[in-house]
Amino acid sequence: MNDVRIDDLPVRDELRGKSPYGAPQLDVPVRLNTNENPYPLPEPLVERITERVREAARNLNRYPDRDAVELRTGLAEYLTKTGKYPVGVENVWAANGSNEVIQQLLQTFGGPGRTALGFEPSYSMHGLIARGTGTGWISGPRNDDFTVDLAAAEKTIAEHRPDVVFITTPNNPTGNAVPPETVLALYEAAQAAKPSMVVVDEAYIEFSHGDSLLPLLEGRPHLVVSRTMSKAFGAAGLRLGYLAAHPAVVDAVQLVRLPYHLSAVTQATALAALEHTDTLLKYVEQLKSERDRLVAELRAIGYEVTESDANFVQFGRFDGKHGSHEAWQRILDRGVLVRDNGVPGWLRVTAGTPAENDAFLDAVRELLSVVGDTPAPPKEQSA
Amino acid sequence: MNDVRIDDLPVRDELRGKSPYGAPQLDVPVRLNTNENPYPLPEPLVERITERVREAARNLNRYPDRDAVELRTGLAEYLTKTGKYPVGVENVWAANGSNEVIQQLLQTFGGPGRTALGFEPSYSMHGLIARGTGTGWISGPRNDDFTVDLAAAEKTIAEHRPDVVFITTPNNPTGNAVPPETVLALYEAAQAAKPSMVVVDEAYIEFSHGDSLLPLLEGRPHLVVSRTMSKAFGAAGLRLGYLAAHPAVVDAVQLVRLPYHLSAVTQATALAALEHTDTLLKYVEQLKSERDRLVAELRAIGYEVTESDANFVQFGRFDGKHGSHEAWQRILDRGVLVRDNGVPGWLRVTAGTPAENDAFLDAVRELLSVVGDTPAPPKEQSA
Repeated sequence: MNDVRIDDLPVRDELRGKSPYGAPQLDVPVRLNTNENPYPLPEPLVERITERVREAARNLNRYPDRDAVELRTGLAEYLTKTGKYPVGVENVWAANGSNEVIQQLLQTFGGPGRTALGFEPSYSMHGLIARGTGTGWISGPRNDDFTVDLAAAEKTIAEHRPDVVFITTPNNPTGNAVPPETVLALYEAAQAAKPSMVVVDEAYIEFSHGDSLLPLLEGRPHLVVSRTMSKAFGAAGLRLGYLAAHPAVVDAVQLVRLPYHLSAVTQATALAALEHTDTLLKYVEQLKSERDRLVAELRAIGYEVTESDANFVQFGRFDGKHGSHEAWQRILDRGVLVRDNGVPGWLRVTAGTPAENDAFLDAVRELLSVVGDTPAPPKEQSA
Repeated sequence: MNDVRIDDLPVRDELRGKSPYGAPQLDVPVRLNTNENPYPLPEPLVERITERVREAARNLNRYPDRDAVELRTGLAEYLTKTGKYPVGVENVWAANGSNEVIQQLLQTFGGPGRTALGFEPSYSMHGLIARGTGTGWISGPRNDDFTVDLAAAEKTIAEHRPDVVFITTPNNPTGNAVPPETVLALYEAAQAAKPSMVVVDEAYIEFSHGDSLLPLLEGRPHLVVSRTMSKAFGAAGLRLGYLAAHPAVVDAVQLVRLPYHLSAVTQATALAALEHTDTLLKYVEQLKSERDRLVAELRAIGYEVTESDANFVQFGRFDGKHGSHEAWQRILDRGVLVRDNGVPGWLRVTAGTPAENDAFLDAVRELLSVVGDTPAPPKEQSA
């Protein structure tokens, strides 16, 4: 009995030999590996959450509002205020993290016999959730500098005619944004080919130098903008993702959503956080300036850095087959956990507090001073 | 733009023309339609939830414990204490409601090209989640009195060789339990046919006259017992479902679970509820005696009633094609919301507080005194 393993069970063939997705959760002094917001919620917000959850707990024997109307209304107000485009409750849907939003979209518009496409490297959960929903996955191209090559992308779309196209902007793990005119061209290409649903994943948009692509929703019922409260709202522990789209899309995902998927305590906590938007967005400004400092200092040290519109920075390059992984280990040895996303030659560091960023910069400065094999002296900067 | 509807979008063919699942959420004085626990959580538990959530909120900028180890340990202790079988953290997995548990099981062991079987009428989400995960659905038979016909069931299993078999006990919406020897025989039949995973859905087991089937896990790595905190724990709003199984099953579902699927506030709230298990189980005893009273009084009035091991009772019969729906409406007109689960001739009522049950019994007494078309005078009791 004890020697029964996963592969001894009748699991689906495509799951055999796989490992669960997720960054190592290590206990180190400085954790800059999962793009968390380093600032704990302000105490008045903690108290407001407590109040709202107390109220929700008194009614916890009842199912939650299945359609999360109050929460979706609050999210719509936030988007309208910050996105330069008016959206209403009928345009917004929410779920347990943007991962569940994406899963619901793929269950609705992807699934067996259908395909989804993303431009990689990008957020790897897109492809993993495609696998989990039986959707075929197409890995689209990027240029060497991680920008989207429009001509190549259009060609890929025309050739594969995917049912769903993901555009992550700002992109994770590379950090760079996709220009609005490129997103627009990809939307047109996707419509010409199929028509497909185009999902713009804006998990990091609040940290961008540019604006949200929400205004592109006008007249484009096949466009979806997905968002999260994990990053800008400093609430990764809350697991609240949401989307904005034409009301028909919101209606459609309700055909596959699990009923009462969003707990009363999640709804209460998210509503409390929305009341404190202004304070939380001030932390975002602080993180943006720390992100810019990381980019500048890494370049000054001599690293190559991808342009970043997110709360993290991709830096390199580390030579050799295992170069980036060895560098990751050496930075970890100095008490700083960054992320090796499997992009050969590159690592990703989350913008933390000024002190955390200093610790990281000290670690990578020391790294460069190590004589010998890896990391190799960085190459000429590309940008 | 405004005239775009679901079917104008490129949704999957099998979703066209469908409606979202869910009971009507109506604002009436007595809601006995979704098998909620009528007792609000005791105030000391509300305060404990508040304390634990305050603590979690202070760390909400960080992702939650991805593996929910503390919570799964607590659930394992609860199962060990109440289930007459020792389970450890490695045997337990938790998710956002038993619906998500079932979805993860079907993503792991079902999916495209595979099938799942249930004995209907039963919990309709089994079939709906099968559809949502691309798993073929086989509707297995029950006898007219809603017991499982073992010979017919074995034949169906041998013929269809399903990859997953659901056994809901106590069954929803009928209320009756499946005898342990029948479950065992079905497990054997399923192993002989394929081998398949057998999921025993024990959402209502705490209300049963009999024991949990947890001890059947011994030496049966293809057996899964699923549970929920929605009913016995009086926490439908929390959305916390869980399963017990061989550790390899727990490992396997982690291949498809969305990372960090369980929020820190959900984990904190569930842990608080587990601290108050003894109090909550006293409410269960009260509900069991109210359930038994409902059965007895409905029969005394003259209704036919299915044996119930759950916190609800199925009663009838209402003649004619629309008989049960008309009866549902007439009971609603009297301020009591029960559930029409689409089982022809039958309705389901949740055991509420004594006052709520009295209001329901008054309503169905009046119903019988109505002269004329529906409801028809109930037939002779079958049991």
